[in-house]
Amino acid sequence: MMQLRVRLLPLEAEKPIVVLNNDDADEIDVKPLERVKIRYNRHNFVAIVNTTEKMVKQGEIGLYEDIVDELKIRSGQILKVDAADPPESLSYIKKKMEGMVLTKHEVDKIIDDTVGGNLSDIELTSFVTSLYNHGMTMGEIANLSMAMARTGDMLRIKNKEIYDKHSIGGVPGDKTSIIVVPTVAAGGLTIPKTSSRAITSPAGTADRFECIAPVELGLEEIKRVVEKTGACLVWGGAVDLAPADDMFIRIEYPLSIDPFLLPSVMSKKKAVGAKYLVIDIPTGDEAKINTKEDFENLADKFITLGKRLHIKVNAISTYADQPLGYAIGPALEAREALKTIMTGKGPADLVDKATTLAGVLFSFSGDNDGKKTAFGMLHSKKTYRKLQEIIEAQGGDPKIRPEDIPVGKNKAALLSKTKGKVLWISNKVVDMVARGAGAPKYKGAGILLNKKIGDKVKKGEKILEIYAENSTRLNQAMKIAGKSEIMKIGKESTMALDRFPSGGERERTFILER
Amino acid sequence: MMQLRVRLLPLEAEKPIVVLNNDDADEIDVKPLERVKIRYNRHNFVAIVNTTEKMVKQGEIGLYEDIVDELKIRSGQILKVDAADPPESLSYIKKKMEGMVLTKHEVDKIIDDTVGGNLSDIELTSFVTSLYNHGMTMGEIANLSMAMARTGDMLRIKNKEIYDKHSIGGVPGDKTSIIVVPTVAAGGLTIPKTSSRAITSPAGTADRFECIAPVELGLEEIKRVVEKTGACLVWGGAVDLAPADDMFIRIEYPLSIDPFLLPSVMSKKKAVGAKYLVIDIPTGDEAKINTKEDFENLADKFITLGKRLHIKVNAISTYADQPLGYAIGPALEAREALKTIMTGKGPADLVDKATTLAGVLFSFSGDNDGKKTAFGMLHSKKTYRKLQEIIEAQGGDPKIRPEDIPVGKNKAALLSKTKGKVLWISNKVVDMVARGAGAPKYKGAGILLNKKIGDKVKKGEKILEIYAENSTRLNQAMKIAGKSEIMKIGKESTMALDRFPSGGERERTFILER
Repeated sequence: MMQLRVRLLPLEAEKPIVVLNNDDADEIDVKPLERVKIRYNRHNFVAIVNTTEKMVKQGEIGLYEDIVDELKIRSGQILKVDAADPPESLSYIKKKMEGMVLTKHEVDKIIDDTVGGNLSDIELTSFVTSLYNHGMTMGEIANLSMAMARTGDMLRIKNKEIYDKHSIGGVPGDKTSIIVVPTVAAGGLTIPKTSSRAITSPAGTADRFECIAPVELGLEEIKRVVEKTGACLVWGGAVDLAPADDMFIRIEYPLSIDPFLLPSVMSKKKAVGAKYLVIDIPTGDEAKINTKEDFENLADKFITLGKRLHIKVNAISTYADQPLGYAIGPALEAREALKTIMTGKGPADLVDKATTLAGVLFSFSGDNDGKKTAFGMLHSKKTYRKLQEIIEAQGGDPKIRPEDIPVGKNKAALLSKTKGKVLWISNKVVDMVARGAGAPKYKGAGILLNKKIGDKVKKGEKILEIYAENSTRLNQAMKIAGKSEIMKIGKESTMALDRFPSGGERERTFILER
Repeated sequence: MMQLRVRLLPLEAEKPIVVLNNDDADEIDVKPLERVKIRYNRHNFVAIVNTTEKMVKQGEIGLYEDIVDELKIRSGQILKVDAADPPESLSYIKKKMEGMVLTKHEVDKIIDDTVGGNLSDIELTSFVTSLYNHGMTMGEIANLSMAMARTGDMLRIKNKEIYDKHSIGGVPGDKTSIIVVPTVAAGGLTIPKTSSRAITSPAGTADRFECIAPVELGLEEIKRVVEKTGACLVWGGAVDLAPADDMFIRIEYPLSIDPFLLPSVMSKKKAVGAKYLVIDIPTGDEAKINTKEDFENLADKFITLGKRLHIKVNAISTYADQPLGYAIGPALEAREALKTIMTGKGPADLVDKATTLAGVLFSFSGDNDGKKTAFGMLHSKKTYRKLQEIIEAQGGDPKIRPEDIPVGKNKAALLSKTKGKVLWISNKVVDMVARGAGAPKYKGAGILLNKKIGDKVKKGEKILEIYAENSTRLNQAMKIAGKSEIMKIGKESTMALDRFPSGGERERTFILER
């Protein structure tokens, strides 16, 4: 045991990490990334050890500012420091590395220690990589889902059966949720929808809806909104639903792997108390799921997992080979969704997809013609009135019109160099151009398509318009659009062999959005 | 591209890492652990990105002090920063994650980027874990060995065939190398021996020999010593032999895995130009290798790998069920080795093991009675005269006597509570007690055994003595010795079922020493 004096480090850490001088670490025989037990007054905690030659002197212990605040430790205070055992969960991670199946208790311990910040990045990475390398049984996936839900906030809406909708993502311009949620709620179902912000795409549903109403609501606020309106459209990140997921995403993202897709989605559904769930699985050449077989495989897993978690799941394979609707980017998409809801009509693909998914949710409640019911809600403006209720309950202006939503003032049109029909549109290039223009960071940035697949195009006709909030970003987007083909226009007999972008731009073949 | 002002962070980093404010990272669209390309004057480099909310403000870029020194960047300087592609090697790590076999080019790129600091801990961990999970082909192991050797210093001794000796470790008190090296060199062979310091054991050969002569020699000094004396006994860590190994050990240690055992050992032998190598594989219940079958398996791998690397390998399975000789701890062991060499005789097990291993090296050179030759060198004091040459060449005092080596002044004896014979000695408890006493940090700390297996013991007779450099450490060692049984004394018919320590002390089931 040593007594060390606290030295504050002007740093942030996400977990309890302390920095020891090499000599002191040797003295108590701990190596970097092992643990120490720290005692002061009547408190004690365990922290992961980093070591340094110079930054922290002998006799000192370096503590990160945010942790000091939380633990109420003062600079200069004396702490008693001793070597500590590794967490129990480390032996279970080791077991998974050996390819063995983890029990419920073992999964629980790993998730507890993940959320508690007791595992180092090296340990977490080894766990994530081993799950990826060895795969998981459905029992492990179910236990992971439950543990990830249990270790975060849980939304409890009394006396209501909870409906929910999820998309695994991958289609630019997919503003379906903004239409599905008020439509379903207008029909009397309860749908507390939490959404994510974009990670690698130009817009997530939370980014989109934030142009219409506030989305950063706390758990109690969400509860109030849902109890009042039967629905909400909020950012999941503002509440602590299945917080382990974010910790795993930090590891998965740089490795471009996603072994947690199923437990990630389902733990969040469990955390909001969902009983019925429709999952949208965009399927196509440029989507995450490419074939009918892969769709059926994944759908089967979601359904099987749902049974173990007492959630009834239906999965829908949706067309994914071009953007949905005409708008891409948070504000442009918000405008398109709002206009569709206000007028009861909009782009055919968007309306069809939204009513199909809403229809599945209605069918869960015994409605044999759910899609028609959903159409009815939209046409009769009941969807719009429900949306207004939701906007108001979340603290927005229910009278907001599409044109009230600001979009980028710097614009440039892309004109067709030839005449013909639109043979294909590259989702990847659409994403790259929209992100290049600044989406999702700049909400007004994005793309407004003028043409979609099958549309006739004249030579020199505008095929799309790029929106940005400043000229640097507009130029950047134009440069990307100039390098990679966003839209192919030709005769219908053209053999579209050159579909994939081959430009020099940094390209992601992997999208982690869930 | 952004222009950011350098802010110095009072931190050390082992690789090029920069810290960006979240907003700036969003602006150039990089996520934590992605890369940025940095340009200034006519220089440029790539760094891994960390992000922060507060520590670094918008418009600033945080750089770690040691990196700034190396790159000659000033605080306040403006750098041009842009998103960069991930390194090529990342896709090869991904390939290994998928269980595929890596080509020579792919292995080369991964090792280049490891040594260059271009891979984050998450990426390195994923690589190490995947190697562990999926295993490696002998071709991959050979390519790793070559790449790990190539990316560090190489010792080139002209016109000499290089002999070498390695132990995979695990036996307390194993000072064999100190005897083998001068014995072999006295016979005219060239043996530039680099050794490690202890990681989890009470002493490494470098810790032991440092009590006799300086061991921290640079590459040119080593060359001079070897050209003069035909041998050296130095710390490998002072030169840059196969530096990738240390980077992998950083990851392997907290995970208690060692997929790099073979390439780690052999890359270092390749780096010193070894042509003939004897490998000591201690085999027994408490050793790393437990059975004859496991020994043969590992030996076969070393021999096969050796063939690919043009190193002729013999592996020897050695008895490992008690400490070697009587002394454990750097200074006590140095005394025992020096006395054995000076007098030409010493503990039977130590002398037998040293002459056996030296004999194998002599046999490589065509000597059919190598063990006898080794005995002859030791008995005739030729080993001692060679040792004196080596000590002098390395900058030590060739007249050093065992009693000149200081040992701990705080001592305590353990007395037998019963009479009988020594039935077993626990290597693990010996290690724990010696480390508890302060070894290897305090060189004078350790254990001097009075009895070994099969020795008769009277009631109240001294069975061992613990040495420490202060009373706190002595008490700590005594406490450990009191909790866990270090030596079992009983009738020969006693069934030794209670062999393993069961005390509350932190126990390592894994030893990374190579």
